[in-house]
Amino acid sequence: MARPQATPESPGSRALVVDLIRSAGPISRVELTTATGLTQPAISLIVRKLLDDEVIVEAGTVPSTGGKPRRLLDINRRARHGVGIQLGFESVTLVATDTNGGVVARERLPGVGDDEPAGVIERLAESMRAFMTAADIPTASVQGVAVVLPGPMRPDPDTVIEAPTLPHWREVALRSAFEAALHMPVLVDNDASAAALGEFWSRGVSRYSSFACVYIGSGIGAGVVADGALFRGSSSNAAELGHITVDLAGPACFCGNVGCLEVIAAPRVVVAKALAEQNLARTLELDERATVAQNWEVLSRAAVEGQPLAAALVTESARAVAGAVLTLANLFDLDEVVLSGPGVATAGSIFVREVRAAMGRAFARNAHPTAVELSINPTDSAAIGAAALTLQGQLAPGHGPALRFAGP
Amino acid sequence: MARPQATPESPGSRALVVDLIRSAGPISRVELTTATGLTQPAISLIVRKLLDDEVIVEAGTVPSTGGKPRRLLDINRRARHGVGIQLGFESVTLVATDTNGGVVARERLPGVGDDEPAGVIERLAESMRAFMTAADIPTASVQGVAVVLPGPMRPDPDTVIEAPTLPHWREVALRSAFEAALHMPVLVDNDASAAALGEFWSRGVSRYSSFACVYIGSGIGAGVVADGALFRGSSSNAAELGHITVDLAGPACFCGNVGCLEVIAAPRVVVAKALAEQNLARTLELDERATVAQNWEVLSRAAVEGQPLAAALVTESARAVAGAVLTLANLFDLDEVVLSGPGVATAGSIFVREVRAAMGRAFARNAHPTAVELSINPTDSAAIGAAALTLQGQLAPGHGPALRFAGP
Repeated sequence: MARPQATPESPGSRALVVDLIRSAGPISRVELTTATGLTQPAISLIVRKLLDDEVIVEAGTVPSTGGKPRRLLDINRRARHGVGIQLGFESVTLVATDTNGGVVARERLPGVGDDEPAGVIERLAESMRAFMTAADIPTASVQGVAVVLPGPMRPDPDTVIEAPTLPHWREVALRSAFEAALHMPVLVDNDASAAALGEFWSRGVSRYSSFACVYIGSGIGAGVVADGALFRGSSSNAAELGHITVDLAGPACFCGNVGCLEVIAAPRVVVAKALAEQNLARTLELDERATVAQNWEVLSRAAVEGQPLAAALVTESARAVAGAVLTLANLFDLDEVVLSGPGVATAGSIFVREVRAAMGRAFARNAHPTAVELSINPTDSAAIGAAALTLQGQLAPGHGPALRFAGP
Repeated sequence: MARPQATPESPGSRALVVDLIRSAGPISRVELTTATGLTQPAISLIVRKLLDDEVIVEAGTVPSTGGKPRRLLDINRRARHGVGIQLGFESVTLVATDTNGGVVARERLPGVGDDEPAGVIERLAESMRAFMTAADIPTASVQGVAVVLPGPMRPDPDTVIEAPTLPHWREVALRSAFEAALHMPVLVDNDASAAALGEFWSRGVSRYSSFACVYIGSGIGAGVVADGALFRGSSSNAAELGHITVDLAGPACFCGNVGCLEVIAAPRVVVAKALAEQNLARTLELDERATVAQNWEVLSRAAVEGQPLAAALVTESARAVAGAVLTLANLFDLDEVVLSGPGVATAGSIFVREVRAAMGRAFARNAHPTAVELSINPTDSAAIGAAALTLQGQLAPGHGPALRFAGP
């Protein structure tokens, strides 16, 4: 990517400095000057503002050659917290992170299921209060709450139009309903986008990389980070990997398209296939009344352990995903792909193997490789990323979410 | 897209002002202040610099209510020229544009064919000199020359690694060879990317749009413009639409992938199919010794005029392209797609019809529409865009090409 010119006044400079302190801190002002290419007065100005905003703190000194000791700067980890809520049909995950993106608390709750929004939101607000008390997180330190769920969404920040896996949640004014219940600023975003941002941050990926996170839950999504910011497109509905056609002769998808990756390869589809194989279902004790996640977990474990039919079904899914990731890599000219989401928690090795093989056919493979890795915490990745989203606007203005806090 | 904050020092502010003058000029400083949201001193500063750089000129006055008349500003159209060279197997197009992107000269030359690079470059340099003399373009006014051709390319600005349609041109240090022959700064870029930038400029697309240009020559490419700049990815090989798999069971592609859009739907493939249909080939007088472009032109005209088999072949190609454009729209969350390239010069209406139909299945269709239009000059689109590329770096620093001029 073209390296943008940094000026002290541009939001990018502040973001750059925060990123450097986060990845290389404790660090001195002199080192920041060298690393950023900004002038000394510019660095002083930005650092003073960040100290005032309590985004960073002074953290000791180091001796300097022939002068006064240099004061070191570090991220102020506990000054602010971000809270992420991943809203799913089968489970809801709450995560709180410090300013550095470190997870300080986590809780898994029952999913939304067929319940009506009002009751779910009230229940969640109750859980949140208990969660924050238990983790000793003062309300005043919470920068905001990000609620993440599958798309598509409308750019209007208040409404989710169609989350096909949450049938009762269409046309709900989600942001204001959560703000009213939580008494905190709330933003609503796509779960795969949040996971992408979280992975980008926690892995310390270069802001000059073209980076993607492929998120496999019961469905399949993705997020792309380019030039250090989420690629959002027109309406924050970019990178919908689950809804690209991978088989022209494939079945119709709920999204209105045909042969989408989701209807070919999503865990919910593969689990349905496995349940239909009576011998396999009996051998593995798959249960029609269990959740997709539970059955997928059993099927994934059997696949990893070499049960032939389970391995064939999971590998078939992984190959379809790999083909779609190759399309993503060719269109975004990717340096790096991370596979994440609960869907790869157990069978991740199979998915990594197939996606790596596909990258051998990437259009620009002679220009640069495309690295393929597995998330360190695939299950909580979207909730952690959501918490990061709430902090990003504060830490790096200009690179924040398109769906901004309106404030309570 | 999130609207970035503008500050007088950021390259984005200069670009914003130039864009406004280009699209709305002649325009006064007061109007610029209102339209940009920048302060009056900031606008004064930027305008003074642009006048000094001869990017803009003063262009008369308008009366003002109760004060001295307002001086108007306009783009200095003839101060600088950009020259674009589209290098193709079958034809080479030269275009010169003024600062406003207006075409001031154009010439079509025989293609590269099977000739060796050295001879072609010498011949081209000769043609360029005659071209500039005839068009009365002083050498000193030429900002630079952009040579555009199909990918993939290496980020190293001097070398094209594989232009599969130009077999003798692999591992040629293209930029320095052209600079040595032309005695002007040269940049090398992808033809579809250049077309995308040219269409973005000439159509006055909002810099907050997610915009793509799909380019059909004898092959198929694309370029994406987001936040007012070409989306380049890791190595300027982004948006390679011709090399995404559209049929998993499809034939192998020269790129190393299988079932690529190019091997299913590119004009060179459809022409080969038409030549194999002996009745059709005889009726339309298709000629095996003619170029792909010539045969495709005949086939396209027959399709538009309703010849059933020709219409079926072209429509089949257009449907495959439409499916791939839907993938592009879903991944980049596009507002607008323009179809361009010589391949749609005659049968454009068929391609527009099929792509528009596909947009009815776009994932975010309830959030926003995706407009589909045809280029005003599909045949010269890449060469015009190339000329625009040479000027962009000057007019809007920070949004210029990744492959920058090194200077002669």
